[in-house]
Amino acid sequence: MIDTPYLLFLGDAPDPLAAKVAQGIKDWRPEFAKGQLRMDGCKADMGLTDMTVDEALAAGVKTLVIGVANRGGIISPAWKAVLVEALEKGLDIASGLHNLLRDEPELVAAAAAHGRTLHDVRVPSVQYPIANGVKRSGKRMLAVGTDCSIGKMYTALCVEKEMRARGMKADFRATGQTGILITGGGVPLDAVIADFMAGSIEYLTPDNDADHWDLIEGQGSLFHVSYSGVTLALIHGGQPDALVICHEPTRDHMRGLPGYSLPSLEAVRDMALALARVANPACTVAGYSINTQHMAEDEAKAYLAKVEADLGLPATDPFRFGAGKLVDALDAI
Amino acid sequence: MIDTPYLLFLGDAPDPLAAKVAQGIKDWRPEFAKGQLRMDGCKADMGLTDMTVDEALAAGVKTLVIGVANRGGIISPAWKAVLVEALEKGLDIASGLHNLLRDEPELVAAAAAHGRTLHDVRVPSVQYPIANGVKRSGKRMLAVGTDCSIGKMYTALCVEKEMRARGMKADFRATGQTGILITGGGVPLDAVIADFMAGSIEYLTPDNDADHWDLIEGQGSLFHVSYSGVTLALIHGGQPDALVICHEPTRDHMRGLPGYSLPSLEAVRDMALALARVANPACTVAGYSINTQHMAEDEAKAYLAKVEADLGLPATDPFRFGAGKLVDALDAI
Repeated sequence: MIDTPYLLFLGDAPDPLAAKVAQGIKDWRPEFAKGQLRMDGCKADMGLTDMTVDEALAAGVKTLVIGVANRGGIISPAWKAVLVEALEKGLDIASGLHNLLRDEPELVAAAAAHGRTLHDVRVPSVQYPIANGVKRSGKRMLAVGTDCSIGKMYTALCVEKEMRARGMKADFRATGQTGILITGGGVPLDAVIADFMAGSIEYLTPDNDADHWDLIEGQGSLFHVSYSGVTLALIHGGQPDALVICHEPTRDHMRGLPGYSLPSLEAVRDMALALARVANPACTVAGYSINTQHMAEDEAKAYLAKVEADLGLPATDPFRFGAGKLVDALDAI
Repeated sequence: MIDTPYLLFLGDAPDPLAAKVAQGIKDWRPEFAKGQLRMDGCKADMGLTDMTVDEALAAGVKTLVIGVANRGGIISPAWKAVLVEALEKGLDIASGLHNLLRDEPELVAAAAAHGRTLHDVRVPSVQYPIANGVKRSGKRMLAVGTDCSIGKMYTALCVEKEMRARGMKADFRATGQTGILITGGGVPLDAVIADFMAGSIEYLTPDNDADHWDLIEGQGSLFHVSYSGVTLALIHGGQPDALVICHEPTRDHMRGLPGYSLPSLEAVRDMALALARVANPACTVAGYSINTQHMAEDEAKAYLAKVEADLGLPATDPFRFGAGKLVDALDAI
């Protein structure tokens, strides 16, 4: 686990989109986002208090999080002085960049000299077990999708927020680097060794109170040939009681696979449910989460109404219209 | 690729079963098996010429293969003198043990001093690509199973042998350490990083002649919750034209999962075929490969006849009764 709260490092972000990680932390764990550190030329702004490393320490910050990605995911030479200063003065650093903190000798030396921790959340820090398939207590929801990058993380986070607002016991369980940085822990599933994938998800979602929900971030898609194995490991390791099926209606082919069209919601429902019932025969589909960001509001509402009519289950864009319908369905399980 | 031919190192094998790797090489690539090296107390015997390292070199051997596994998969101290001698005199060493050759300082030093190669086939030596799903030329068969360790490697090897006997172009493609040692190359899929699993199988089975068959060794099962993700990566990365479904009828639960019963052949057929058609809409099921080793001959034949009658496709135990029926079906695709 990464110590909180955070100072969000925005560096010299070339545009607001480059600060996606910082935005996610600010949106979903505002209590962790004590301040932001921007360098000259930074084009991103989270609307947080701008802080130096000293100010962040005075405010109780424990970890500087690299909240920005530049082209290639590298640790820019321009950042180094700030990062070394943070380590020297007493902050840990967490990063999801391809360019690992541990591969930068100045950072390794400064961390060692000052007893600080470098968290490279893109690579596993745990030796996960092989999955044993034993039924665990507590309830689990898994977001599965027609495609990659379609809103599975946001869906699980929206459901967590709504459940917590209702006083339900709920924890988002991150399986990718952005989710790990947002919540301070999780499994970087795409970097786990094949044999241990399902076991890593069992590890992530252990026995819990009977009325507790783990809201598991999905990855990939059963219908995405590059990453489908990762998705199936989530379905079998996660042992979900409920699936929420995620879709983005305006996409014209699978992400990164121009020759592949998206599967229907019915196809994903039937395939995912049949596979999920291998690990948990009681698994059911709770509803549909539709990412309507590229649709006008009228169009979005009409699409959701059609999904509900055609498939007979609640459908919402939980980020735009709230996750209430999905939580109602989950709470009835 | 591992240089051939081989000297099969049987060490101090406690029983014949411990020499499974050596037996596989002798059965499937007898032309690679120039001789065997047995130490005092060795209880295994492949019926090959016993050779010293010097005799093996004189016979043209290029690589000493660790053909035996002792408890824990470790490199026994008793073996070290022989292994160092082999490296010093000019042999490479190949091993599928958990205890890696590269983690033994004496072996690393001897290999470096004498310009030899240590092949740890349990870990990948290649940076595999992410799968792109582009259709490849040539034909591919994938063995899928109701469970793990059910005869998928033997099925693919039997089909290769029969195809080659008929003059067809065919290559077994290994995805596990035993298969890699048998054939000298392949992908140790269970040790590949999640994001690259499907890509490693695309890499293993590239474009080929239109009438060439890649016979891909299966792993795990879509219904085995510990390893199903590996299986799906094979189905999508392998892009098979044909599936052969493997089963062992006497098993009473999934291997290592006491609470899980085996799926029916129909369930595996329907699930595997639906998923395979995502990557290759033309994929079909060629037939059933039944491991009848625990059944009397009459019982086995009756079982095969029933599978054929119930499922309408050829069924055989290719190791016991030959792979002819399966090759007939594949050749008609």
